[in-house]
Formats: sequence, C-alpha cells, structure tokens
Amino acid sequence: MTELLKNFVSGQWQAGTGAGTLLKDPVTGEALVRVDAGDLDLAAAFAYAREVGGTALRAITYRERAAMLGAIGKVLRANREAYYDIATANSGTTRNDSAVDIDGAIYTVGTYTKLGDGLGERMYLLDGEPQWLSKESIFQSQHVLVPTRGVALFINAFNFPAWGLWEKAAPALLSGVPVIVKPATSTAWLTQRMVLDVVDAGILPKGALSIVCGSSAGLLDQLAPFDVVSFTGSADTGALVRSHHAVTRRSVRANIEADSVNSALLLPGEAQGSEAFDLLVREVAREMTVKSGQKCTAVRRVFVPAEAYDAAAAAISAKLAKIVVGNPRHDSVRMGALVSRAQLDAVQSGLALLREQTDVLHDGAGHELVDADPNVACCIGPTLLGTRTPDQAPRIHEMEVFGPVATLVPYRDLEHGLSMIRAGEGSLVASLYGSDMAALANTAIALADSHGRVHTVSPDVGSVHTGHGNVMPQSLHGGPGRAGGGEELGGLRALNLYHRRSAIQASAAMGDHI
Amino acid sequence: MTELLKNFVSGQWQAGTGAGTLLKDPVTGEALVRVDAGDLDLAAAFAYAREVGGTALRAITYRERAAMLGAIGKVLRANREAYYDIATANSGTTRNDSAVDIDGAIYTVGTYTKLGDGLGERMYLLDGEPQWLSKESIFQSQHVLVPTRGVALFINAFNFPAWGLWEKAAPALLSGVPVIVKPATSTAWLTQRMVLDVVDAGILPKGALSIVCGSSAGLLDQLAPFDVVSFTGSADTGALVRSHHAVTRRSVRANIEADSVNSALLLPGEAQGSEAFDLLVREVAREMTVKSGQKCTAVRRVFVPAEAYDAAAAAISAKLAKIVVGNPRHDSVRMGALVSRAQLDAVQSGLALLREQTDVLHDGAGHELVDADPNVACCIGPTLLGTRTPDQAPRIHEMEVFGPVATLVPYRDLEHGLSMIRAGEGSLVASLYGSDMAALANTAIALADSHGRVHTVSPDVGSVHTGHGNVMPQSLHGGPGRAGGGEELGGLRALNLYHRRSAIQASAAMGDHI
Repeated sequence: MTELLKNFVSGQWQAGTGAGTLLKDPVTGEALVRVDAGDLDLAAAFAYAREVGGTALRAITYRERAAMLGAIGKVLRANREAYYDIATANSGTTRNDSAVDIDGAIYTVGTYTKLGDGLGERMYLLDGEPQWLSKESIFQSQHVLVPTRGVALFINAFNFPAWGLWEKAAPALLSGVPVIVKPATSTAWLTQRMVLDVVDAGILPKGALSIVCGSSAGLLDQLAPFDVVSFTGSADTGALVRSHHAVTRRSVRANIEADSVNSALLLPGEAQGSEAFDLLVREVAREMTVKSGQKCTAVRRVFVPAEAYDAAAAAISAKLAKIVVGNPRHDSVRMGALVSRAQLDAVQSGLALLREQTDVLHDGAGHELVDADPNVACCIGPTLLGTRTPDQAPRIHEMEVFGPVATLVPYRDLEHGLSMIRAGEGSLVASLYGSDMAALANTAIALADSHGRVHTVSPDVGSVHTGHGNVMPQSLHGGPGRAGGGEELGGLRALNLYHRRSAIQASAAMGDHI
Repeated sequence: MTELLKNFVSGQWQAGTGAGTLLKDPVTGEALVRVDAGDLDLAAAFAYAREVGGTALRAITYRERAAMLGAIGKVLRANREAYYDIATANSGTTRNDSAVDIDGAIYTVGTYTKLGDGLGERMYLLDGEPQWLSKESIFQSQHVLVPTRGVALFINAFNFPAWGLWEKAAPALLSGVPVIVKPATSTAWLTQRMVLDVVDAGILPKGALSIVCGSSAGLLDQLAPFDVVSFTGSADTGALVRSHHAVTRRSVRANIEADSVNSALLLPGEAQGSEAFDLLVREVAREMTVKSGQKCTAVRRVFVPAEAYDAAAAAISAKLAKIVVGNPRHDSVRMGALVSRAQLDAVQSGLALLREQTDVLHDGAGHELVDADPNVACCIGPTLLGTRTPDQAPRIHEMEVFGPVATLVPYRDLEHGLSMIRAGEGSLVASLYGSDMAALANTAIALADSHGRVHTVSPDVGSVHTGHGNVMPQSLHGGPGRAGGGEELGGLRALNLYHRRSAIQASAAMGDHI
C-alpha cells in the first residue's frame, strides 16, 4: 500500500479518513502516494490560521517576515534534489522542465525576500503622499495599506506544484497573511513535501502555513469577509469560485487565473532570414515543448505576415521534428509526459477539434516514444497546426489545448493580426518579434489592454531576454477576460491582494504618528 | 399626462415603448415625470458606446479629456438652480441636503479636471519604474496602465442622482472609457437632466455618455470581457451583479458598494464636557439627519465609553429634538423626506426590528411634520436607539436602517469597542473622536483593514474637518466585506478601475519609445 500523505491544519499533521486518491507516475504508471482530506475539521483549520497564524504574522514587521522567506529559500535549496526526484516521478518532466517549477519557486521566494527587506521595520504601508483637505492645510488624507485580517486560500493547478505555491505564498506571508494551500490532486506530492520541509524547519509561526490535499469540497464555504481566494485552473472552475456565495455575498476577494490562448507575433516586414524571424521560430518551438506545453503562458497562436507563412511553417516544423519525446529519465529525451491520462485525452480531443478548422503542419503522432510504452505513458509529440484562412477558423482563438500544440496564423496587415490576437478575449501574454523599436513599442502598447504582459524580442536582446512563457516575479502575471482577470506578482504589486487600502483623514498633527 | 423622459443611447434620444414608471414628489405625492426603457436596442447601444465612444475617447490625451470635464463642470454650474428644483421635487431634500448631491458632483468633476490636466498629453500611464530583468541591464520590465477597450456601466442608487453619476463618470471619462448610466428609477430625473444638459452642450464625443432610465433588465447581459460594471445599492442586488455570468465567466470587473453599518467612536478617557465629546455629539446628530440619513456613509452605530453612555444619550437626543421635519420648501424645516413610501416602510420595519434589541433614547415619532401630510409625505423624525447590553444585541451590527436612525453603544474598553465595530464585517467609514494624537493614530490603523476610510476628529480640526459622511474625491470611497469590497475615488486611484495593467518586457532601447 502506498503512503497516505498527511494534511497540515490547525498546527497538526492529520491524515484524511478516506481511502485516498492515488497519484501515479505519468510515464510508467507506477503508484506513488495517496492523498485524502476526508473528515478534516475545516472550520477549525480556518479559524486557527486566522487567529493564531494571522495574529502572529501581523505582530512582526515586513523585514522580519522577509527574513522568514529567506529561511524558507534556504530550506528549499537544501532539499532541491528531492524535489527534482518527485517532479520526475509525479510530473514526468525532464530536469530542465522541472527546473522551471522548482528553481522558479526558489528564485521567486528570493526575490520577495529582497523586496520585503526593503520595506523595513514597518507593520503597514503608506500609499502615496498626504493630500490637504482643508484650506488651512491642517486636515489631510493619507492612504495606507494594512494586512487583511483573514486567510489566503490557494486552489492551485497541477502544472506548477512548486512555483504555484510559492509565487502566491511569498507575497501573502510577506504581507502578514496566513496561507492555506489546496494543490491539484494529481501532483500534490511536491507541494506537500515542500510544506513538510518548511514546517519541520520551524521557520514560520504556528498557523501561518497549512495544506489540504485531495478534495476541495467545503473549502470555499469557510471563507469569511476578510479572506482572499486565489485560484489557478480552468475557466469552468474559476466561474464556480467566483459564483460562490463567499465571493458574491461576503465580498471575499477572488483572484482568478484561467484559460489563455497566448500569442506570438512576427512584426510586418520581418521576412525569412531576418534575425527577428529566427528569434520567433526558436522561441515558439521552445514554448511549445517546455513542460510539454503545460504552461498557462505557453504560445498557442503564432501570427506571421502572410508572405512568411510557408517559411515559418517549415522552420518551426524542422525544430519540432528534432524533439525527442519519452521517459524523462533517458538522457536523449527533451520532452517528457503530460501529467495524466486525463490530460492526454483532453489534449487529443482538443487537437481533433482544432484540426477541423486547420491543417497539420507538423504531426506529433509521428514522434516515437523513447523508453516509454504508448499504452501507459502520457506522452505526446509536438504538433503545429496552421490555416491559410484564419477568418474562417474562430476556434483557434477560443480553444486552449493544454499540451505541445500551437497554430500558425497568417495576417494580411498589422491591424488584421492585432484584431485576431484580440479575438482571444484577453490573454496572459503576447510576444512580439521585430527590429524596429518604435513599431515594437506601438504594438506592445496596442496589446497592453488585453494582455497582462507583452514580451518584446528584438535582436539586441536575443540572447538575454527572459522568454515568452517564463513568469518573472518583477512583472505582472495575469490577464483580463478569458485569462480570468487576476493579477499576481509584479514585484510589490503582489502585496495589494493581501492588503486593504484605507484613507486616514486626520489632523496633520495626528499624521505624524502614522 | 406627465412627461416621459427619453433615454440617450446610440447617439439618439429614444423613448421607451412602455407606459413608464411614474416619479413622484415624496412630500406632496405629486406626479412629476415618467421613465421607461422598453424596447431599446441595448446590444446596439453598448456596441455604439464601445466602438464610437471608446475609439474617440482613446484617440485624445488625458489633458484633452480633462478639458472636457472642465466644460462639463461649467454646464453643471450654469444649470445648478434647475437641479436644486428637481432635487426638492423628486428627492424631498432641503437646500443644504440637495447641495451634498449637486455641489458634491460639481466639486468632484472639478477635482478630476485638475487631476487629469496634471497627467498631461499622454495616451496611457506609466506604472512605476523600469526593472532590470537581465544581468547585462539591457532587458527590462516597465508596467503601464492603458484604458480598457470597453464601456463602464453604472447601476446607481436613488440617494445620489447627481454625485452618484459624476463621481463615477469623471474618472471613467478621464480614463478614456465611455459611460452608460442606469440611475435608480425613483430619482432618475436629476441624472437624466444632467446628461441632457451635457449632451446638448456638445462637449463629449458621440457615444461617450449614454443613459438608460427605468428597468435595468438586460443591461448586464450586454457586458463583454473588457467592460466594467460599477454598482451602488443593496447587498442583495450587489450579489446578483456579482453572480451574473458576465462577471463570473467573462471576468467583467465589478465594483460593488453595498450596505454599511458605519461607526463613530469616542476614545477612552473622553468624558462629558471634553471637546472630543462635544465634537462627537455634533457630528452624530448632523450625520443622522443630513439627507434624512439616506447616505451610505451615515453614522449607524455610536460607540462611547460605558461611563459616558448616559451623557451621550442625553446630549445627542437634545440635538435631535431641535430638528424640524417636514416640507423642505418651508424655511424652518431642517430635514425633508425619505425618497419614497417604500423607503419609509423599510425604515419603519427596520426600526421595529432594531427596537427588539434596543431602547429608544429619542423617538422620531414625536416630531410633528411641518407643512406635510403624514398620510402622504415620506417624512420621519430622527430616532436614537441604545442598549446597555450590546453583547446581547447582534442585530445592531448587521442591520443598516437607511434613514435618520442610529444606535448608541457603550463599550467596556477599547478592545471591546473595536471588536464590536468589526462585527459590522466591513464598512465604508468609521470616525474617531479624541485628543490624544497617538491613541487616535493607533486606533485609526487598527480599523483601517475593515474600513475604506477612517475619519479622525481632534479639537484642533473641530471646525475644519470635512465630516464623517462627506465623501471627498481625494480619499478612497468603498469598504470591504459587507460594504461590497469596492474602491472608488481616492484621487487618481479611481482611474485603476478603468485601466488595464500590463508589464511590457523589452530591450531598454525599446523602452525609450514607451
């Protein structure tokens, strides 16, 4: 019988009372561990986090909380190899792909350690300068940001068990807000192990960090007015979160990151052979295959000038053809597995729907699996689709196939390209490739209202840009519309979700005490 | 037959096809005008606002849009007397009370005119400084705020037909976002007249400002991913807005301002005869009676040290006893009518519920009406309730009786007082009265997480402070939890609702073009 992972709530490690859900190796099918949240006292868990954890966190300064993040970073670095082993087994990812999750988490924690230290020995933040409200200049308004007196509930996605926890928890803990994380069941192991290591290290006050593994049933019911819920996952579940009475009736803040049909665009005038063309080809092939395309930020649509369509199709396909797919433990393998058979089925049925409106430019089915049984392994080769008549293919702007799949789309002129990108109705990221700096800037601004991030690649930064899909903690992560409307990261902007803004109107003499 | 007010949509004045809803004088019962939105083509109206209005507004700079606000302010000032006449007739308010709405609107438009001019000849805003993303310091992230490409739908409350429009429309129009306003039916006349005057003056581009009077049926269905809806009204309707699929599935931003059981608190140690005591008494009596207590920000709960309870009860009651209630056209009248018989019924039934857990310290039923028929006029005298055992009276923290009603509550010590204030589960505003600046500052910060605004009154600002209930455009308006979780005003912070934040990652060389 496999190990049943425990939950950590109310300051205690507690096993669920059910049989548990089995987590499997998506390459070999091997049974790994089980998770279960049956019969946990969730009301007590939330009250404990709020009262014990929140009170303790709010009693110390930003700098002291930043020091705790620094200590967490050390624990994560010390246990890094164990995390890689879990990722290989439970996520089926290659070492490079596991790094995006694990080292991304460690880097993000490190960034908030530094940012938090810069906030100093304060218990709350000033927001802007005081404004005079009286002609005599003695009565004024000063806005402040104070930690919310609630918990932050994270309902996370399967694709980033490590980074998905810490990119949310670092800003929350730094803000003085206790965290309860519910990782996606299929990959909950890595999240649970990280929480276990941090709890064992005794870094955080009791109640500051809790984890519930398994079913999310009943979690939302516990949310009270000053709590925050941050959800990453499907648009359908996001809508359920946002429809819950805690959100609609108690004004619980809901931050949602959902579907996103992200774009890459080669600017007009950039033909085959230009540096920008090559940069686009390289980045698209990379983005399609990193973590087998299971990144919310992965490129799903590739827009090129109509005259560059054939060349782009050939160049991207040539890159994809070299991708070796299979067991990530094998040295030659560049791309491992999808996370589960359910995901494999979803990708295949999504592909079938997209193929009804597109041509196959490179067929992933042609990739033989290395050291993996096609009847067991959740592996699939990368597929490039394309259409010469995109105005007759609305589905390509609506469907996010969460795997190594993208669609190449020719545009007549820039306005046509931008209007098709906007048909995605809001995305996490668009990337632009070109050499005319003014044209790149204008295009970036034109897409800013519908994208949380616009990543611009010009030849001078070809070797140092941070990548279309990599989420840097310095930049906003989130997007409007279909992408869920949430905002995460963006440096200290991430703290806003966990703080409440208030205008303190008072005598200037009182203002000296703020 | 009374006049049927027209709606202004798709750049045309259009009458609804129904019989219309009658608006009445709440003092005399006289029929005034009718409103109706039957058979309007709402899909066309929203598309016109988005495409014609939004495109035109986004094509000009903040400074140019601020100049339009300046021109709107001139039009409103020129027609001020007509607005006062409508307010007297349709809202039943005294001249002083009408000023809170009408002059408040004009002041707010003026404030955004100045703030907008300060933004200069820009088409979008920079948000923070660029951050380096590469060690070589050539790849950077710059956040920007760009106007959303959608409409702003306002569903407004009956108590502020003038200010309620402009406190939202000024920041939206300044942001470059077209406005569609649906005023509360019972007082829609003043909103409609202001829109009429501004449209007639030809200040705004076509499609920038629309108004739908009457039923709100179908309006939410028109909302698309980049639109914004801002609602002010009851918690029940707020929950309906937030549950609508436009919000849950299309990530339409919803700003909600709902119920709020606001507090005033006399600090410990301030006894009868202290300046702070007198300031509290004066402000509470004023707040209870301005606009007959029909302000979202009005004081509903008054917290005093237990030993000051009797003195406070006597002092506030003495002030209330002097309030002359009746027809606002009569010179002696200080407090006019509630807005409708429905509101009068709601206040009376709310009072009855509160009285089950409280004593009556001053009974509004004892006020004779001046120049008004009690069987017709929606007038009611101010009532002060109180309880010596507040821990047995949970209803006082939960019920917002939207009229001239407040409850006096004694506290044992400051922590007891703060815990009862927090039992309101989030409010728009709390006001504090005291003379110890450090104690005031600490208490203000302790309440900041549960209040959008904390208004602090010390003797040095006794004659210049801006009032517990007055919403200054420089300060945030909104509150967490029960208050709806929205944020309005706060100077330029108001523009956030109408802008989208995006991180532009690019070569520093491209950054020069941003």
